[in-house]
This record gives sequence, structure tokens and C-alpha cells, in this order.
Amino acid sequence: MAQYRYFRLNDDGFTGKGSVMLNELSATEAASAIAKGEITSEQFVRACLGRIAERDGLLKAWAFLDPDLALSQARARDAAEERLGPLHGVPVGVKDIIDTADMPTGMNSPIYDGYRPRNDAACVALMRKAGAVILGKTVTVEFAGMAPPPTRNPHNPDHTPGGSSSGSAAAVADFHVPAAFGTQTAGSVHRPAAYCGIVGWKPSFDHFNIHGVRAAAQSLDTLGLLTRSVDDAELLGAVLVGREAELGAQPPRPPVIGLCRTHLWQQAKPESVEAVEEACDRLGQAGAEIREFPLPEDFAALSDARNLVSNYERARATSWEFFTHPELLSPQLHASVERGLSVDYRDYAAAIAHAYDCRARLNPLMEGVDALIAPVAEGEAPEGLEATGDHAFVGFWNLLHVPSFALPTAAGPNGLPVGIHLVGAFGNDIALAKTARWVMDRIGKQA
Amino acid sequence: MAQYRYFRLNDDGFTGKGSVMLNELSATEAASAIAKGEITSEQFVRACLGRIAERDGLLKAWAFLDPDLALSQARARDAAEERLGPLHGVPVGVKDIIDTADMPTGMNSPIYDGYRPRNDAACVALMRKAGAVILGKTVTVEFAGMAPPPTRNPHNPDHTPGGSSSGSAAAVADFHVPAAFGTQTAGSVHRPAAYCGIVGWKPSFDHFNIHGVRAAAQSLDTLGLLTRSVDDAELLGAVLVGREAELGAQPPRPPVIGLCRTHLWQQAKPESVEAVEEACDRLGQAGAEIREFPLPEDFAALSDARNLVSNYERARATSWEFFTHPELLSPQLHASVERGLSVDYRDYAAAIAHAYDCRARLNPLMEGVDALIAPVAEGEAPEGLEATGDHAFVGFWNLLHVPSFALPTAAGPNGLPVGIHLVGAFGNDIALAKTARWVMDRIGKQA
Repeated sequence: MAQYRYFRLNDDGFTGKGSVMLNELSATEAASAIAKGEITSEQFVRACLGRIAERDGLLKAWAFLDPDLALSQARARDAAEERLGPLHGVPVGVKDIIDTADMPTGMNSPIYDGYRPRNDAACVALMRKAGAVILGKTVTVEFAGMAPPPTRNPHNPDHTPGGSSSGSAAAVADFHVPAAFGTQTAGSVHRPAAYCGIVGWKPSFDHFNIHGVRAAAQSLDTLGLLTRSVDDAELLGAVLVGREAELGAQPPRPPVIGLCRTHLWQQAKPESVEAVEEACDRLGQAGAEIREFPLPEDFAALSDARNLVSNYERARATSWEFFTHPELLSPQLHASVERGLSVDYRDYAAAIAHAYDCRARLNPLMEGVDALIAPVAEGEAPEGLEATGDHAFVGFWNLLHVPSFALPTAAGPNGLPVGIHLVGAFGNDIALAKTARWVMDRIGKQA
Repeated sequence: MAQYRYFRLNDDGFTGKGSVMLNELSATEAASAIAKGEITSEQFVRACLGRIAERDGLLKAWAFLDPDLALSQARARDAAEERLGPLHGVPVGVKDIIDTADMPTGMNSPIYDGYRPRNDAACVALMRKAGAVILGKTVTVEFAGMAPPPTRNPHNPDHTPGGSSSGSAAAVADFHVPAAFGTQTAGSVHRPAAYCGIVGWKPSFDHFNIHGVRAAAQSLDTLGLLTRSVDDAELLGAVLVGREAELGAQPPRPPVIGLCRTHLWQQAKPESVEAVEEACDRLGQAGAEIREFPLPEDFAALSDARNLVSNYERARATSWEFFTHPELLSPQLHASVERGLSVDYRDYAAAIAHAYDCRARLNPLMEGVDALIAPVAEGEAPEGLEATGDHAFVGFWNLLHVPSFALPTAAGPNGLPVGIHLVGAFGNDIALAKTARWVMDRIGKQA
């Protein structure tokens, strides 16, 4: 870890250019360095705050950041007689739809401006118990919905970072913090991960506890992680579910990978098609067995089914805000709730039934296949901040409840990151992480 | 509706014995009488408040009740130029783990004493939009867990009303309010419904929106309804999912009913065995086709699986309270969280996988069967308030996500109510309600 030698911190900790390298440590590296006494949590947090001070005026990744509060947590970790857990002293960013007892949770809505929940979300409490420092709250799309946030893509500020976990992805990609929480109802972890060139982990539905996370659509909402490495996702994920992290763990043999073009293949831009095909070529050369993996034809209906389920459930989850503060909702969300409240219940029930049926059929189909590779987004991040891009390539998978990673493996015509989607069978999160590591070791691009 | 003629209200509205009859109206009857101008919402709410004033010193069904706030809602309904919706003017009770913007949500925990959420839960907002009056908050077991509440059974105050929706069941059974929300993670809707002799509806998992309902165990928690008739459950349930209520709707032909003794049959007390067998006899005489319906043998493992899943998930959902306020948790909950945090993740994952597998197999097995009849509780409500009874007879079904009704059909050796459990295939809530109505019309006992 040669980069430590470059570490030099100004007294105020917020402007030192010498701190650039330290903030680039991964969560795994930082946890290890803190445990060994090579650095303190305060030094690492100061380095992160310094990077944020330099960059966030432009990028707008943070919805709430109190440097004193972050540093006081770090100093408490440094002063602790015992290491609390595997994340001792490591800062983590929290999407601003996730409750925090000591910071506001604004949800990017004027209705919750300055709102301070009574309690931490389960995921935040578990992070703290493992020693993490809750650095601050990252910008979310309004209620993790559709209105565009002010956040910019760190690779090119004229492009969207994707959404709705916009701030988490931009902050991690730009080395403000090594890891952050995101949530996904359609593509809100993977699209920003892909657009920002980092790792997104959307685990199996209900894999992580979601108590204290603002609901969007209850049968779809999944808590996920944005990191710059598979190991960091593993490190935090293991804490959340209560097991030992298997850092660096490899699959028992080169994986069997299904090339899954999906019903949306014709809508993918050349850079996404190339990213998928090139990944399969290179992984095949590296020893993976690549098979074509067509989905059953009726899985194409999952795209419309997801959108209908999401509209229907979101309208109900947002009903108090819609009925009592309609003028404070964005026009996009207001229209979405209106649509969702008018969805015919029988259409909703039919969509749910189709999802249950497809879920039950997918795991048997995936027997003998370690993972599928599919497009994760239409292409690289679109220009402009007026929209956060298309979630279609991830959305229908989300209705299937399967675990998946967004992995940065390529670049597009504008030099922006392009990723692939690595999908596992329901419940196979641990094995999928090993396959993802194997893939990243061979074809991953560093952020 | 001859009982109206007995209506007489004292000026203060809280002690008039003459109000007894009016508060016994069902939600369906009250909604109709208010719509026709036969009674006002204020009169009905005053009658309910009068009954509560008479009885709640003994029963302790209510955690929060502000008569002025309830009456001001009722008067606003009476003054409205247009009927808001199908529940216009009808009071509803809300279990005190469900968020209300205008009343505290205490969760029967000193940690949340006086806690006032920012927003209404989705189910509360949807009730208000349909014209309902939120009467007050009903006593819950601490975080819908296991510590016994002070609530008493209206049929015999020396017996438990069951839990964790204790106050909702007691209040509805004792004519304080025609309908109330409950939630079920193991048997928290159906056990109190059965013990108190009323109707419980635990719909398919995720059938009702659960945003704003305090989480216990996310893959099990289901919002349900406690009423005195199937029509009232249908009336409120239709509002929640956004469809027309099918009041009085009957199945197209006498139902095919599976007699499902379950792996727990030997543990059922004679009154529960008799209730199930007698229900099948009488319904068979009434034209139903009764078949033995044995569950596959490996479904017996669902009991342990549910308990493990519940422990594991509840520990995480209660982690902030456990880490920050351990001394304010009941000894029962504290021990449960400790156990849950030590559950091996792989055991949890195996339990979830078994549940997915059984869910996928149950619906095909139920083809051609309209409903199953099974025991809903070990027997009638046990004596004493130190425990709320055993949830085993309902718990494993809850892990299957299937819809079910608790229906009052019998009485036990102490003269207390005994119910049956009517279980449908996943997603078949509307058809199951029709079967439940058919059953109640033939063998139901009035509360």
C-alpha cells in the first residue's frame, strides 16, 4: 500500500492536496490500515472530507454533511479501547432516504426538509455497531423516484450520474468515501454504478434488512451497496447479514456463464452490446464456459409488469404526501402517483402472479450456470442533468428478486464508463460475489 | 336496522347507556346509515366513545384516544359537501405500531413514548381519503413482539385477548369500533381474532401496502384487518387496494374445501379439533365438497423455519433499539434480539430457500380447492395475562405468504370463542373472501 507515503494532512484537514491519495483507499484497505495503526480513522475521514471540499461544489453528491459530526465519530473510534468490528473507523455514505438518528433525512423533498427521524435504519445501526463512521447523507432522487437531482457525473459533469442513488455513486466514484448505501426499485443501484464506473451490488430481495429505508414499492425495494471493489461490497454485506467476510474468495473452478441478451437486446447501444460480447469473449479465453442463455419468451412481459407494480405500489406508499402536500411533489412524481392510484387492482394482481411464476421457474433454469451476463444500461451516461437515464435493462430483473452486480468493464464513445450486469440465482449471493470477483480480476476497469 | 330506535345520546357523549346499540353497527351498516343521513358520523363516533368510556378502564384496548380529535374528524365528515369515499364517517382503530401524523405512535415501548411520526402510514392515509375517522391507537405488544400487554379479553377479563394486535381485537370484539388494523408476523392477527371471537383477515403477503408500519420481520410482516364480519373486511380491504368492494358476494358454487390437519394436529386441544371437524361436517351438509388435504411432509419444517426467519430479521429490525437502549427493551425482546443476532446466516438462507420452494409448490397443489380449513389456535384463550398464547398454528402458514381468515365458529370449555383457519392460495384474496362469507353465513357465530 505504497500510497500511504504520500499522505500529508493540513491542520484544517479540508484543503490539503496531499490528502488525495489517502482518500482513495478502499474500505478493506482502510479497515486494515486502521486496525494495524498505520493510519487513524480521523486521518482517513479528514482525507475524505478534504476531497469532498474540493469537489462537491461541482458534483453535489452530498445532501447533508457535518464535518464535525463525522470527525467526532472518527475520534471516538480512534479512542476506543477495543475494535468494534470489521469496519472500525471506516466512513460510509448513506442515501438520503435512509433514516439516521443524528442527521436529517430529507428524501430530496421539501415535505421532509430538516426531518430528523427518531432512530437509525437497521443498516445504519449495524454499520455503526461494526465500527463504521456515518460520514453523511448522499443525494437521492426525490423519494428514490424520477425527478432529476442536481448531482453530476464525476467523469464528466455535463452528464448524469444516473439515479436514484445518484449521490452515493458519484461520491464513491469520485473518492469521497469508499462505500455507500443505495436502494433499487428499478435500476437505482446499477444504473448509477454503471454510469459512474463503480461496482453495484443489488442482492437478492430482502437479503439486507430494509427497516428504516423509505419505501418506494415494497415488493421491489432492495437495499444495495456502491463500492469500488467486490471485496468492499463483501466486507459491508457480510456485516449486514452477520457472517464472516470472505475477502478475496475465488470460485472453486472457472465459472459457467450464460450470455443473456434479454428481450431488450435490440435497444442496447453499441457500447453496451460490445461490453457484453467482449466480456464473454475475454472471460471465455480466461477459462469460463460461455453458453447462450435465452430467457423464456414470456419473461419479456416482466418489463411492463415491473412498471405497473412499481406505479401501483409507489402511489400507495406516497399517498400521505400526495393527499396532504400535492403542491410539494415534483410534477413527475405527482403524475406517477395519479397513474398508480388509477391502476386496476386486477392488473396489478396479474403482474404479481406473473412475477411469482417467473421467479419459481428461473432458479431451476439456472442450475449449472454460475451467473448470467447481460446489458446493465442502454449505454454510457447520457448528456444533461434533466433525466437520469433508462432503467429498463435492470428493472425487469429486479422484479425477479435475483441478486446481481453492476461491474465496470468498458468505456463508451465519449470515454465514459460502461458496465455489465452479472446476475445470479435467487439466494446465491455469496457464490455470485465470488464469480464477480473472478470477473473483475480479469476484465474489470478501475474507477 | 331496528337498533337505531334505541339510540339516545347524553350531551357529553361518553356515559349514555342508550348509546350501546348504535356502537354495535358494523362498518358496512354505519357507512350506509351515514350515507343515507339516518345517522351522523358524530353520533356514531360518540356512541363508540361512550362504549370505550364504559369499558376500557377494564379492557385496556386503547393506547391513545383523544375524543376531541376523533369528534373533530367526525364533524368534518358530517360537514363535507361530498362523500369522500365508501368509508365516509366510519371510525377505524389503528394498531399502535402504525404511523399516524396526528397521534403518537408508541409501539408499547418507552423508547417511543410520545413519539409523533411526520406522516401517516399508507394504510391510514388511504382510510382517511376514503372518509374514515381514525378513532385512536390500539394497544400492541411491544414492537409487535412477545412481551404481554395489559389488554384483557372482553369475553372474560381474566383471559388474554391474544397478541400482538391485542387492542385491535379486544376493541372490535367489545364494540368500541367496527374495524381495526392488525399486523401479523406469526399469528398476531388471527390469534387475537380467534380468542376474541371476531373475523381476522391476513391477506396474501404484500397485498396491503405496509409503508409506515413498524417492521418486525420483513419477509413475514403483513398488514391485516380485524372486523366482526367478512363484509367489513371486504369494505376496508377494497379501499386499501383500490377496487370496488363486492359486499355480499357469494362463490359461484358451493366450495371445495380441503380439511388440512397440518403437522400440529396432535397439539390442538379438543375444542380446536372439534371446531375444525364440526365445521367440515356442517359445511359438507350445506353442500361443500370436503376433501382430506395433507400437506407434503417437508412442510412441517416450515414451523422452525418461520421462527428462525423471524428471530433473524427481528433482531436486525430492532438493532438500533438494542444497541442504543438495551435497558428499555423487555427481557423477552432483549433475549430474542440476542438470539436473532447469533443465528447463522447460512441457516437463515436455508430457511428462506425452503420457504420459497414450498410457496412455489403450494399453489399448484391447491388447484381445484377453494380453501383449506385448519386449526387457527391451540384452543380457546388461555387464562392469565402473562402470555398471549401460542402462534404455532398460524405461524408456518404465514411463511407461505398465503391469504387466510380466522372465523369465529365455536366455543370452548370455558365458553370462550374458538375459531377456524380458512386458507387460500397465494393471490386469491378476492375469491377467498367469498368462500369465507359462504362459510360464515352457514356456521359463523356472532361476536
